[in-house]
Amino acid sequence: MTGMWQCQGVTSASTAGAVRQGSLRELNLAVVLRRIAAADRPPSRAEIAARTGLTRATVSAVVDDLIAGRLVTEADPAPRTGAGRPARGLVLAGDGPAGLGLEINVDYLAACVVDLAGAVRHHVVHRADLRPVSPADALTRLAALAADARAAAVRQGLTLAGAALAVPGLVGDGGLVRLAPNLGWRDVDVPRLLAGHRLAEPVDGVPPLVVDNEANLAALGELHAGPPGPASFLHISGEVGIGAGIVLDGTLFRGARGWSGEIGHIPVHPEGRPCRCGGRGCLEQYAGQEAILAAAGLAGAELPADTAATRLADLAAAGDPVTLAALADAGTALGVAVAGVVNLLDLDTVVLGGGYAPLAPWLRPPVVAEISRRVLTAAWSPVTVRPAALGAQSAAVGGAASVVRLIVDRPVGWLARYG
Amino acid sequence: MTGMWQCQGVTSASTAGAVRQGSLRELNLAVVLRRIAAADRPPSRAEIAARTGLTRATVSAVVDDLIAGRLVTEADPAPRTGAGRPARGLVLAGDGPAGLGLEINVDYLAACVVDLAGAVRHHVVHRADLRPVSPADALTRLAALAADARAAAVRQGLTLAGAALAVPGLVGDGGLVRLAPNLGWRDVDVPRLLAGHRLAEPVDGVPPLVVDNEANLAALGELHAGPPGPASFLHISGEVGIGAGIVLDGTLFRGARGWSGEIGHIPVHPEGRPCRCGGRGCLEQYAGQEAILAAAGLAGAELPADTAATRLADLAAAGDPVTLAALADAGTALGVAVAGVVNLLDLDTVVLGGGYAPLAPWLRPPVVAEISRRVLTAAWSPVTVRPAALGAQSAAVGGAASVVRLIVDRPVGWLARYG
Repeated sequence: MTGMWQCQGVTSASTAGAVRQGSLRELNLAVVLRRIAAADRPPSRAEIAARTGLTRATVSAVVDDLIAGRLVTEADPAPRTGAGRPARGLVLAGDGPAGLGLEINVDYLAACVVDLAGAVRHHVVHRADLRPVSPADALTRLAALAADARAAAVRQGLTLAGAALAVPGLVGDGGLVRLAPNLGWRDVDVPRLLAGHRLAEPVDGVPPLVVDNEANLAALGELHAGPPGPASFLHISGEVGIGAGIVLDGTLFRGARGWSGEIGHIPVHPEGRPCRCGGRGCLEQYAGQEAILAAAGLAGAELPADTAATRLADLAAAGDPVTLAALADAGTALGVAVAGVVNLLDLDTVVLGGGYAPLAPWLRPPVVAEISRRVLTAAWSPVTVRPAALGAQSAAVGGAASVVRLIVDRPVGWLARYG
Repeated sequence: MTGMWQCQGVTSASTAGAVRQGSLRELNLAVVLRRIAAADRPPSRAEIAARTGLTRATVSAVVDDLIAGRLVTEADPAPRTGAGRPARGLVLAGDGPAGLGLEINVDYLAACVVDLAGAVRHHVVHRADLRPVSPADALTRLAALAADARAAAVRQGLTLAGAALAVPGLVGDGGLVRLAPNLGWRDVDVPRLLAGHRLAEPVDGVPPLVVDNEANLAALGELHAGPPGPASFLHISGEVGIGAGIVLDGTLFRGARGWSGEIGHIPVHPEGRPCRCGGRGCLEQYAGQEAILAAAGLAGAELPADTAATRLADLAAAGDPVTLAALADAGTALGVAVAGVVNLLDLDTVVLGGGYAPLAPWLRPPVVAEISRRVLTAAWSPVTVRPAALGAQSAAVGGAASVVRLIVDRPVGWLARYG
């Protein structure tokens, strides 16, 4: 494949559109930057040319632009055994654009900064029960964390190019939070309430604020944290509520209206315990954080989210029989729901994220047992159940990572201002 | 948009690949044929030129090729009020290629022929309990139905361009049926057992035989039967087993290994009735055909599949209280599983297909009730529950439709031999 070629005509409307939309330079920038982002080890200019089909001269010119725009930097050359001067490898820059990830959950606020290479450069969690706090007050507190994060980014030479806010609920058009049942929010206009706060610098093609479901952003974090390439998995965020992000072939599946992933409301005992949602027997009532705490004899202990999971993990590690039984029951309920999902979607990987990540040693065995027992294809094709790579609070990190991903996918918007 | 244009260079590998793979003629043929297939009413050559951006001369040449190859034919001109000779519209041909759809299920065999325009030209259902029959004998019987269908196609001037076989089980590589629990099949090499039978004529780009899960093919049938364009829906085939086809944005979602859609094994009562699959409380045990017949007092009545559904529908229509209660209970169980799926995937349409189609008047209300009660987003976004457009036995029709779809998508393979 060569990078420059002549064509006489194109008849497919979609193909013609794809070529026309982007200028040649825009396409070249994106192709080279994505190649650097996806490489196992820092590639040289020659290797990029060989893999993309672009000429050496084109790659060099594009790389110069990317370096000047603080998107790419040269890595120390790797030792080589062959003759000649070793070629310098290229890596994503650690002093260019960064993403701001924010999270508001039932019992904590979080803010983090992730650079283009995916490194977390700042991360603060503020623990507080937010159920008695008004949405406006909660968002004012969050804005203070965001301002601290922005200052930390500036100190490290980074420029915040956009922000993503994770919420434990259903997000509608324009960032309106339609319902966050465990927070008690209904129709909260988050962008309006945050309008007075500057969260990031304006960059063409990067929204200044994306509001998304926390389970979605946590799944995106897991996707970008893993090895590059297509992947399909179910990422489950176990907090007070339980949400799922469904990644199919490397893309988050959002559903008809963007409200997919409500795994916490899959019925596991159809006429069982009443749920806040109005239904009965929802998974959340058997495997949500409050259900586990209650079964472990810790109900009303007023533990913040990550403390609750840590506390349960400590008790389980110490062999406390009541805690072990509570986690086994929660894992079985989770396994019943997951087995249904795997039967339906034929996914081969299930990731235990959020508050489930530190509890994975105890939740995993009953989940695996239910899958083995109930999934029709389990005999031929094992399902991997593993803790999330990002651990708890991956939603804020995933949100920040999704911001920088926008720049990797379309660097021209950033370069227009900072190149 | 114009059909002919010059470009100086293309740098995106995927774009370059898309243009290169097909010759200009191949692309033009596909673009024009798809436009004719997708049109609401027979388009004229001028209208096709306007919609595709191709020149009038190019469209005329391409249409001539398509007519000569029996893919397109001219429709009678529609009455016009304006001056001048009315332009003749173009429609898909009814005397060119056709697809052979076959189905083997627990209690029937089916064969049908669908032409390029989607019309069913031949359809035979042979009722028999196939559980005591060996796979080889069952496939020999099916091959006899296929030979009859082929003769019927030839008599109507059609050429069978490929065949698709629907089976109620998990299909692996090479058409191996790994497991069809309700038939009692395990590791049945269907292509080998059918190797001595010529099902269709060889056409470049169309496999002579595709073996697929019946719920998948039924969903494809529903997709192609509906209005053109992207669509997302859950299609449920209710037979002795219950399978689902998940169509996302106009594409069947097959899962990591092609085994998605096993909705019949979603647990609805985790410690409930034992299931043939080895699990407990699977939906199939509450809403499968045998469960409904047993609850309606018709267990062991040895009714073939469509007769069973018709018999239940007749009794329900006559107001038989036992049948009505059986259908209400089955609908509730189905609704519990469907509510979980909608919470997870945020689909806005659920199609009741196969044996559920004639029972939809009675199954739909409890399914809708469970959705309303259990789906978190039900208050903002209604979910449509409707019977399948193709009714029962849509798998064979869907399989045949998927064969002709391959020709619409890439007509050059057919034209190479018949053009």
